[in-house]
This record gives sequence, C-alpha cells and structure tokens, in this order.
Amino acid sequence: MSEVEVRVYPVQQLSEFSARVFVHLGLPRPDAELAAGVLALADLRGIDSHGVARLHTYFDLLHAGKINPTPELNVVRESASTATIDADNGLGLVIGPKANRIAMEKAGHAGTGWVSVSNSNHYGIAGYYVLEALRHDLIGWSMTTSTKMVAPLWGAERMLGTNPLAIAFPGLEEPPIVIDMATCAAAYGKVEIATRKGEKIPPRWAIDSQGKPTDDPDAMIEGGALMPLGSRREDGGHKGYCLAVMVDVLCCVLSGANWGPFAPPFALRQYEPERSVGKGIGHFFGAMQIGAFIDPDEFKRQIDDYIRTFRATRPAPGTDGPLIPGDPEREAEAHRREKGVPLVLPVVEDLLDVSKRTGIPFDDRGI
Amino acid sequence: MSEVEVRVYPVQQLSEFSARVFVHLGLPRPDAELAAGVLALADLRGIDSHGVARLHTYFDLLHAGKINPTPELNVVRESASTATIDADNGLGLVIGPKANRIAMEKAGHAGTGWVSVSNSNHYGIAGYYVLEALRHDLIGWSMTTSTKMVAPLWGAERMLGTNPLAIAFPGLEEPPIVIDMATCAAAYGKVEIATRKGEKIPPRWAIDSQGKPTDDPDAMIEGGALMPLGSRREDGGHKGYCLAVMVDVLCCVLSGANWGPFAPPFALRQYEPERSVGKGIGHFFGAMQIGAFIDPDEFKRQIDDYIRTFRATRPAPGTDGPLIPGDPEREAEAHRREKGVPLVLPVVEDLLDVSKRTGIPFDDRGI
Repeated sequence: MSEVEVRVYPVQQLSEFSARVFVHLGLPRPDAELAAGVLALADLRGIDSHGVARLHTYFDLLHAGKINPTPELNVVRESASTATIDADNGLGLVIGPKANRIAMEKAGHAGTGWVSVSNSNHYGIAGYYVLEALRHDLIGWSMTTSTKMVAPLWGAERMLGTNPLAIAFPGLEEPPIVIDMATCAAAYGKVEIATRKGEKIPPRWAIDSQGKPTDDPDAMIEGGALMPLGSRREDGGHKGYCLAVMVDVLCCVLSGANWGPFAPPFALRQYEPERSVGKGIGHFFGAMQIGAFIDPDEFKRQIDDYIRTFRATRPAPGTDGPLIPGDPEREAEAHRREKGVPLVLPVVEDLLDVSKRTGIPFDDRGI
Repeated sequence: MSEVEVRVYPVQQLSEFSARVFVHLGLPRPDAELAAGVLALADLRGIDSHGVARLHTYFDLLHAGKINPTPELNVVRESASTATIDADNGLGLVIGPKANRIAMEKAGHAGTGWVSVSNSNHYGIAGYYVLEALRHDLIGWSMTTSTKMVAPLWGAERMLGTNPLAIAFPGLEEPPIVIDMATCAAAYGKVEIATRKGEKIPPRWAIDSQGKPTDDPDAMIEGGALMPLGSRREDGGHKGYCLAVMVDVLCCVLSGANWGPFAPPFALRQYEPERSVGKGIGHFFGAMQIGAFIDPDEFKRQIDDYIRTFRATRPAPGTDGPLIPGDPEREAEAHRREKGVPLVLPVVEDLLDVSKRTGIPFDDRGI
C-alpha cells in the first residue's frame, strides 16, 4: 500500500454511499443495501477489485438501462433440493444473495439445496455467499462465470471466464475454512498492476495474441489471455481448464445462461459476444446442512483439529508454514473494519464522478 | 509404450482373473465382479496405475485381514438428499459403487443425492463413478482421499492425499465431458517413471525432504512430497492446496473418516499414521438429476454446442488446439477394448504371483 497513493475510508461511508447510488438508480432500498453490502465485504476482505472499485461500472450499466433495477426472480424449475432461477436481468449483487437464500432454504428441508441461475449479471465476490451460509450454520458453495478472459489449455484465445469456486466449512473455536479461488493461474488485476508499474509478469500467467506464453502484461491485455490454473500441460494446466469448464457448465448450461466465450461483457464499451446461447450471466449456489451428514459439533471439533494440525505443518524454507484457506481475507477484514478501507486515487475519482452524476454527496477526504 | 516391454491382454481376461481372485479372498461373487469391473475400467481408460497393477496390493490387504471382504454398509445418518455411510472397512472397489448408487437413488427422489462415506478403503479411479452416473442420465460427482503424498503450499511435509475430483456431463450427439483430476500438480506415477528411467522431473512437481523444490525424483520419493496444483504461490499453488482441502473435508470430516495426514496407508508395510482421527478412508459422491434444473435434451444440445465451440478454439502454436475433458481416456478405451490392455512386465509378474498364491490360473502369454 506504500507504493501508490491511497486514502482510507470507514466501510460504513462506502456502503452508505453505494446504497444511496443504487436507490438513485431505481433499486428498492432493501435491495440497494444488499448490493452495497456485497461490495463492502469485498473491500473489507481485501479483494479490492470487486468492491466499490466496481461501483462506477454498475452505475453505468444501470444508468444505461442494461440491468433491470426491479427484477422478479422466476423459479423456472424446482425439486426438493434444487431450483433454477431466471433472474430477469437483475443486478447480480441482489440476485446472488436471494438465490443463495433459496439454496439455504432448500437445505433446511431436503438436507442440501442447489440453485442454478441464468439471466443475471456479475455478483461480486464468490466468498460473500459462502460466508452467508456459515451464518446459518451451513456449508455453502458458490460459483460464477464472467466475461471471457482465460484460454483453455492449448488454445490461443479467450474462451472462459476466471470462473471462481468458493466453499466454506465452520469450526467451533477456530475460525472457518473459507476457500474462494478463481480457476486461472493469476488474477487479471495483477496483470493490470504490472502494466501500470512497467514490470514484467511471471511466464506462467498469460499468453499473447498468438497463443505463446508471455511475460509482457501488455501482450496479455491486448488480445492475449490468462492461463488456467496449472498453466502448462506438464504442470497440470489441463486441470485448471477442467475446473473452469465445470464451473461454466454448472452455472450456465444447467441454468440456460451464456456459457464460455458468449458470457456478456461486464462493462459498457466492452467486446460483445458474437452470438447468444442463453440468458445473461450464470451462477451456481449450494448449501449443505451439516447435521444431514454428521453431528455438527463433532464436525466443527474436527475442523478445529484440522486447522491446528495444518498450522503445525513443518514450514518450507523461507516461510512461516502453510496458511489456512481464508486467513488472509479474515486478517484484512479485522484490520479494515477497525482502520478503514484504503482506496487508490483512481477509485476515489470514480466515486466522485458517480457523486457528481447522481447528486449524492461523497466526502473524499478520508480518515 | 515402445520404451518398456509390455504384453497385451484382452480386458475380459484381466477382469475375470481379478473377479476370481476377489472370490478366493472371500468376496461374494457379485461384489467381486463389481470390484473387478472398477479395476478393468481403469486399465481400459489408460489410468494404468489404478487397474490390475493394484490387484496384488488389494490381495495383500484382504489376505492379511486388513480389509473386510463381507462388509455391511451402515447408513448412519440421512436426509431426503443426503446419506452418511459407515462402510464397515469394506473394499473401496465395492463400497464405492454401492454408495454411488445410493446417491443416484436419492437424486431420483430429491433432485440431487450426496453421500459421504467413512471406514472405506481405496476405491479405484474417481472417473468410474461419474461414468456410472452418466449411464443413468445423471450428472455425477466423485471425490476421494488417499494416503498422504502432497504438501500444502509453504509446507515441507506430506499432509494431503492426491485427492481427486471427478464430474461428468452428458452430451446428445457428442460424447460426454468427463473431468477426473487429482488436485496435485503431477501424478506420483510420473515421478516413479522418472526414477526408473534415471531422468529428472520438472521443477514444479515436487519438494525434497527439506521442503525445497527439486528436480530429483528420488528426493521426492525419499521423504519429499508432491506439490499442489499450481505449484508455487505466484502461479496459484494455494489454489491446488485449497482444492485438496475441499475434497478432504467433504470426504472425511463430513463422514467421520481419517483426514489429511491420518489417512491409512494403501499397502502393507507403508507408513502408519501417528494417530487416528476417524474411521478408514473417506469418499464423497454426488448425483444431480438434469431434469431437476432444465430440460435434459436442451442441456445435452447445449453440451454438444459447447464441445464443438471449444474444439473450434484457435490452437496454440505447436498444438492441435484444446481437447475436451475426457478425450484421452475415451480414445484409450476405444483402442484398448478392441486391441487389449498393455501391461508392463512387473505388473504381469505381480499377477503371476497372485496366481501362484491363489491357485487361480493366469495365462501370461498375452495377445
């Protein structure tokens, strides 16, 4: 954080501003607060690319009428443990939490609940939804697709989103295990940072427009693609590709959304897919009642033991030993809840622009 | 196959021999045939390490009374869409197919079915179970843990199994998408092959006993560990570690089996874990009725389109373009069903040894 100029804001200021903006754009207040809460959690947990840094893009899309501010969720098919939802082109930040609730309700009755969603838009961080499930003492699953950015192994072009997968398991005395990971080798945001700093990127993150591995971030951005997790064939790049396909099929083919290269763009003025194979963006949510499998206290005691056992792993040289999935985000959240959320100046400028366009005041002085 | 001497056998000969061996060891004939079928499918699909190459180890364990030849599956907890099974220390090759059937039955009633299994043993290839689900027109999931072999990122010792994850999706005219992948960077079998050939391994597969990356296969085998998918932090090694944890918790913590470093050894005379935290090895199975989400024909037509779209990806230089997950195994199966299964001589010798000990004839001349 010392390398670029940042200002720090209380998370309440950011979420209140976001909520007022969403209300201004026609969302009912409860939905606006829900959406603002998803963005705020990303900022708290240190996933800066998915927090208020995206508010301007959501503003653009809602303002241009590209997203429906008052969608009606339509359950197009369901069974005891499943539902398929047409999200009526609603804001993913509102659709996601509501679809996730349906999964959790199904789990309450049938042991598990699984919801596939079409006709949605970007839903923020995958981790939000599994943390919600934890609050209801459930094991939560969450997946989504996004605009094409990743090449399949042996492909020379973008065909898949970064397609994250999240799942979380509660402990008793220990904090939960929270997994939230994209299925590509490295995040696009890291490539952008390298460009801004004029630095090279590691050779296993990306290919150029010819399909060749590249260490030039601009070559990735200008028509190249990210590599799937594992990067090259010999190191398991086919496995990252498989995971991205799994997420894509569960989110999009199962719901009737646009899969693979046909996922709609996130921002205005982005590439338009050459054809449509379904409706909007797709998500997939799951919820599992722990007590449907095992005594929940016994499960959580074992998770505590698991965490302590893995923390006691002999460390690799030059490290403090393995982390538990979710450690970095939890530490960021604890720090930022107390000290505030740092925003880089371009994001502050974006918020001021939204403020100017909506007439909703934003005090940019920070803490 | 030209580098080492092999003999080729009709798959029927191998599966009949395996079934007779299992009957000799006390399994009821239907169970023996089930188990032999799981091994044979591994051989057909080119996953040689998990086929009859393992028969001698199963023989050893059953012969030594370490595995129960006549287990009674005990459903210890269930809900409309879930079951937890204590597998009574049965052979994983028998327990797996039976537990998977319970998941499929649950899916028939509740839309989906999810079964976590404790007190089992190694169940063969994860892919077997999802192919079974395809035969019932279901989306199948399958995961298992195994003896510790993989280090968590930033760890210097083995703490996790290779923890595979499999899932499959049916097409209409196209063959299915079949994903079956370990969550480590490379298979242990590849390290063994490098040792036999006196070759180095790529630097992102393994660490030595000090926790340092190594290109020496012996350094991995003698107290080192495999790396998780993604290998190093900058290339996503934390993500492979997360996936291995996910599989571990779903298979073992949810069922009450031995997780992480406490998974029992596969073979006699292998390392005994320092403590037991549950019962036996754990598995996790899932089955999803496609019609619980979307019209099954529409789903399959989209999968066909998906497959054709991804096959049409612009190829990376020096490649023929991306494969579809399952392509290599399906091609191996088509070839080996017709031409037979190649076995390396050490495996043939193992089968002859089993033949000698059981009195069950094995004609080793091959085709």
